[in-house]
Amino acid sequence: MDPQSTDVSPLSEAMGARLSAARAAARGLRGLDVATKRAVLHEAARRLAGQGGEVLAGNAADLAAHDAAPGGGRGPAFRDRLLLDATRLARMGEGLRQVAAMDDPVGEVVEARALPDGLRLRRVRSPLGVILLIFESRPEVAVEAFSLAFMAGNALVLRGGRESMNTTGALYRLLGEALLAHGVQGGALLGITDPDRGLTRALLADDRSIDVVVPRGGPGLIDFVVEHARMPIIKNDRGLCHVYVHADADLDMAVRIVDNAKTQRPGVCNAMETLLVHRSVAARLLPALHDRISGPARATPVRWFADAEARAALAGRPHVAPATAGSFDTEYLDLALSARVVPDLPAAIDHIERHGSRHSECIVTASPEAARRFQQEVDAACVYWNASTRFTDGFSLGLGGELGISTQKLHVRGPVGLQALTSVRWVFDGEGQCR
Amino acid sequence: MDPQSTDVSPLSEAMGARLSAARAAARGLRGLDVATKRAVLHEAARRLAGQGGEVLAGNAADLAAHDAAPGGGRGPAFRDRLLLDATRLARMGEGLRQVAAMDDPVGEVVEARALPDGLRLRRVRSPLGVILLIFESRPEVAVEAFSLAFMAGNALVLRGGRESMNTTGALYRLLGEALLAHGVQGGALLGITDPDRGLTRALLADDRSIDVVVPRGGPGLIDFVVEHARMPIIKNDRGLCHVYVHADADLDMAVRIVDNAKTQRPGVCNAMETLLVHRSVAARLLPALHDRISGPARATPVRWFADAEARAALAGRPHVAPATAGSFDTEYLDLALSARVVPDLPAAIDHIERHGSRHSECIVTASPEAARRFQQEVDAACVYWNASTRFTDGFSLGLGGELGISTQKLHVRGPVGLQALTSVRWVFDGEGQCR
Repeated sequence: MDPQSTDVSPLSEAMGARLSAARAAARGLRGLDVATKRAVLHEAARRLAGQGGEVLAGNAADLAAHDAAPGGGRGPAFRDRLLLDATRLARMGEGLRQVAAMDDPVGEVVEARALPDGLRLRRVRSPLGVILLIFESRPEVAVEAFSLAFMAGNALVLRGGRESMNTTGALYRLLGEALLAHGVQGGALLGITDPDRGLTRALLADDRSIDVVVPRGGPGLIDFVVEHARMPIIKNDRGLCHVYVHADADLDMAVRIVDNAKTQRPGVCNAMETLLVHRSVAARLLPALHDRISGPARATPVRWFADAEARAALAGRPHVAPATAGSFDTEYLDLALSARVVPDLPAAIDHIERHGSRHSECIVTASPEAARRFQQEVDAACVYWNASTRFTDGFSLGLGGELGISTQKLHVRGPVGLQALTSVRWVFDGEGQCR
Repeated sequence: MDPQSTDVSPLSEAMGARLSAARAAARGLRGLDVATKRAVLHEAARRLAGQGGEVLAGNAADLAAHDAAPGGGRGPAFRDRLLLDATRLARMGEGLRQVAAMDDPVGEVVEARALPDGLRLRRVRSPLGVILLIFESRPEVAVEAFSLAFMAGNALVLRGGRESMNTTGALYRLLGEALLAHGVQGGALLGITDPDRGLTRALLADDRSIDVVVPRGGPGLIDFVVEHARMPIIKNDRGLCHVYVHADADLDMAVRIVDNAKTQRPGVCNAMETLLVHRSVAARLLPALHDRISGPARATPVRWFADAEARAALAGRPHVAPATAGSFDTEYLDLALSARVVPDLPAAIDHIERHGSRHSECIVTASPEAARRFQQEVDAACVYWNASTRFTDGFSLGLGGELGISTQKLHVRGPVGLQALTSVRWVFDGEGQCR
């Protein structure tokens, strides 16, 4: 463990003092001018470029510990998410600069009007206060989350995965220095490098210190937070996303969209997991799609878990297995998909209602009527007509990044950007009005 | 594993079927035209006028049970909240018509733009789905909540207090008939008249059926819901509201505002509980205020729990006791107040930061600078300059009523009106765009 890390045990007074400092910093951040906020973000970007070696040294220690673990660690995909290099450092710096270029959401007047008795009201966008983000694996998340939370005027408590604590520890020091360089209280960022889950549990119980918790990780983490958090949650649950190819779809377009949604980056939550195909086009679409994503040209062909009708259309082809009871509830996060043939649009919508995770859903159709019905009836954060589900992220949608993708309905649906890290207060000016 | 979470009894088959019906109704409500929604609300208002006798008969049964309880029931204030009469029935009908007159929030396009590659996006206001409201005492809440939830396109599960179950049962029947009269699925309203708390516990665990829970009641209920709910909560916590009278305040205005905020309806959450007074005006303000709200002209004089400086300004007057350690954390909901003299504006803001419940706060001052600082630094849903805290409610603010007053920061702060019962989805139209 890094001797300079800021470990605190769950029962320590020191942790209470740090939370008080975060609370106090949040008060200061409410009115912080945007020039200072931008200066801090640019400062952090400069330091990432100039002192990136310290971060890479921390990362090397985390990677060494991972590789030395019994059984060779947690696999290549996990190791890749843990890894930082010059390219990724540069991307983190670019992200900081992008957020710094955005408008300040704090103080925006969302609505202004007068009540009948002359009382004037304004609805004003304001920070949430103190946000706790619990995340796993990718250490870049620390920097992206800090930039958004800080620009939205919030103090941030960060708790990353135990496997990345040397990396995140170095990032926390660097960000803390950027704050201090511009006279901002260090409590604006509380980075936790103590891997004790008991401490996390204690944080989740402390709804006096923490206004909102954002869990970002696998189902185990989400369940732990839902079980124990006393404060409101912005939940980043799994993405069980569908593409439905309707009877009148342009099949070339359908093949391109499914290929993109499934294979462009299969390990992310906005990737497609289940393909639904209208019965009348299954025999034409499925073989063409199989040629494209499961043929010999692909280094890793996509594996299929298909219902009987889909298998019939793919008879004699490799990489096709029968769908099982659990297939249509499986988030593969890998080069695999479930496939089902449906008789009509309502059956596709029903399937999504039953199995979807309310993340991102797509219909491929030439019919505006079918598209409108799908968009109206499918209850998901993002609903696409003739476009890949892969667009569901904060950068693509111009939000300057994201703290995650919300699959709940309260507060924010879809990418959690700057605006989602604020709330709207009511402010009144009167001349003695009473009821 | 938390041992408290292992003993949730499963829902009965009948209740499971009713929840499935609510879920199915919610799907239908998503696209329901506003004309039908308005017709149902007017129908309910007509039936309240025409069949009010059935509701009053149910209410008479609840009142008789209350009065027959050992010790004469739960007191006159509770009995008054339980009581319905012709005036209150008429007010409920008026509330239904007011909500029917509002714009349909569902389908509102909050934002529309195109991404660089031509993908067009719209952010569309959509229903939350199935809302569970748990409320205590006032049976009118059932009708107000139904009108708002339904107009916002949601199915509603209602669970009222056990003391009002005959009244609410009659109201549920009446509202259900209004739905059926216009061809809307009865599952749009699931009224629960089973007082078993185990059932409530099971509902709170069922985040597949219920999207959001709104608890509306005392601290015991709120704690129970925070402890057990797996779905997001819109919390209606207590209102520990302050009025701060600054050094330069118009003292006549200050007396009028404090009188209104404290005495116009002391039992509600937007009433003032604590008075903070700048040291330089305490000797003039406090006696004048005491004359007004605690003098012989008042049938029930306001009782004071005051710090030493405030008591000194009120020397020799009746109804003044020393503030105790807990006074400044007490929500009296009665004709009583805490009073404290402070040296300056920052001390007032600090006091509110420490003791306030983030509900409604007021400053009385002639200084725009002091007002702006107070409005900026005080972290509450509603912050008033020279006006009574009593304006914090959905009717006063033009929201067509309210499902409660949110004191949390996520999703909605202050009165929970129509818009707060929706969320915003992303809807995309493309021509084959991929990443």
